[in-house]
Amino acid sequence: MVRAQVITCSDAASRGERQDRSGPAVREVLERAGYEVDGVMVVADEVDAIATAIEEATGGGARLVITTGGTGIAPRDVTPEATLRVCDRVIPGFGELMRARSLEKTQMAPLSRAQAASRGAALIVNLPGSVTGAVENLASILHLLPHALELLSGTRIERHP
Amino acid sequence: MVRAQVITCSDAASRGERQDRSGPAVREVLERAGYEVDGVMVVADEVDAIATAIEEATGGGARLVITTGGTGIAPRDVTPEATLRVCDRVIPGFGELMRARSLEKTQMAPLSRAQAASRGAALIVNLPGSVTGAVENLASILHLLPHALELLSGTRIERHP
Amino acid sequence: MVRAQVITCSDAASRGERQDRSGPAVREVLERAGYEVDGVMVVADEVDAIATAIEEATGGGARLVITTGGTGIAPRDVTPEATLRVCDRVIPGFGELMRARSLEKTQMAPLSRAQAASRGAALIVNLPGSVTGAVENLASILHLLPHALELLSGTRIERHP
Repeated sequence: MVRAQVITCSDAASRGERQDRSGPAVREVLERAGYEVDGVMVVADEVDAIATAIEEATGGGARLVITTGGTGIAPRDVTPEATLRVCDRVIPGFGELMRARSLEKTQMAPLSRAQAASRGAALIVNLPGSVTGAVENLASILHLLPHALELLSGTRIERHP
Repeated sequence: MVRAQVITCSDAASRGERQDRSGPAVREVLERAGYEVDGVMVVADEVDAIATAIEEATGGGARLVITTGGTGIAPRDVTPEATLRVCDRVIPGFGELMRARSLEKTQMAPLSRAQAASRGAALIVNLPGSVTGAVENLASILHLLPHALELLSGTRIERHP
Repeated sequence: MVRAQVITCSDAASRGERQDRSGPAVREVLERAGYEVDGVMVVADEVDAIATAIEEATGGGARLVITTGGTGIAPRDVTPEATLRVCDRVIPGFGELMRARSLEKTQMAPLSRAQAASRGAALIVNLPGSVTGAVENLASILHLLPHALELLSGTRIERHP
């Protein structure tokens, strides 16, 4: 089984002022899809805190790291920036697909900066912070994860050209 | 009312060799949508000139800056580069949405590099230089502006997670 | 006639372990579309090798450089990185359009990082490595090439604003 880590990025949840509902919702979807979820970390909307959480997750063996929250354009929305700081390559198709699918449900979809990037053999995917947004965005890219993780691992025999 | 500034990027218009029709057309759309437009500046297709115009607009209090022109791929098309120089964050969904909507009308839509980015609490949106292109692209993202400006201002109460 | 160069990026093909089928397939499409194809180079999946091949192609007079292979997310997929190293500007609409059209045929389309960028007056387009993927992606952007090359050359009379 592939190990995964969920990171909830939220000032209010990290201070205990609000219950984190998105993290557990994402965890449930991942477990139903067959991933072994190490846990749900809750961190403040700070670049350093989020970047460190991603590093610890992948350093601890997680191949898949899913963040929720901090993907909008408010001043405290810094999850994409934190992700880029510790990742090698952006995979633009994830963000495009999440926004395109989300646009079928909400006109505000283009305001999400959610994206995916790779860190070595690990895949990092940013999801919005609302429970609905997180679960719907995850559903739109869930089918890509097995092949993406296989490719990132480099174990696949080259079938090209 | 939210204050806005229009910047027309065009060598020919800045030299007075051509009348700027796109800037006034954009202004009219913005005023009908309830924005208070400070004015239409006309600058040459130069990174420095465009970047300075954006800085002056936001420094003068404009929350919304709409450029028109210089979004293509000709050597003198430098508006996206000038925008990035003075902005903090690209918001990729704007460019994706403008190109997707524009593609329904013209096959050449993918050649536009129009995008949006934030500079502090201000939103900068690049539009193509033709009157039709500018007005149509603006129409496709106009509904996003009130919520985007609200989020950028940071005054919104966090509803997450 | 516009001169073009095809570059196949593939470890296996560069070592002679596999026949390059994508490069010749791309060449055939280009020649049918009226381009004068200088040749098909085959290079390893190395940033330096690919970047040098692009430099040599444009230095030798090619206005259009089409790469095939190395656009995925496996560790050896480095063609987009090599392309960016020697290019001035990304043209995001090409990657968006190729992925959108490809998504109509394969669910895995978002894993392609294929894109286009300009190097002076030359246009560089990355295509996937499979014959089918390369030919289908090329077909989806072929109609953009004449106007893109015309704009990049800077010879077009400004019709703006």
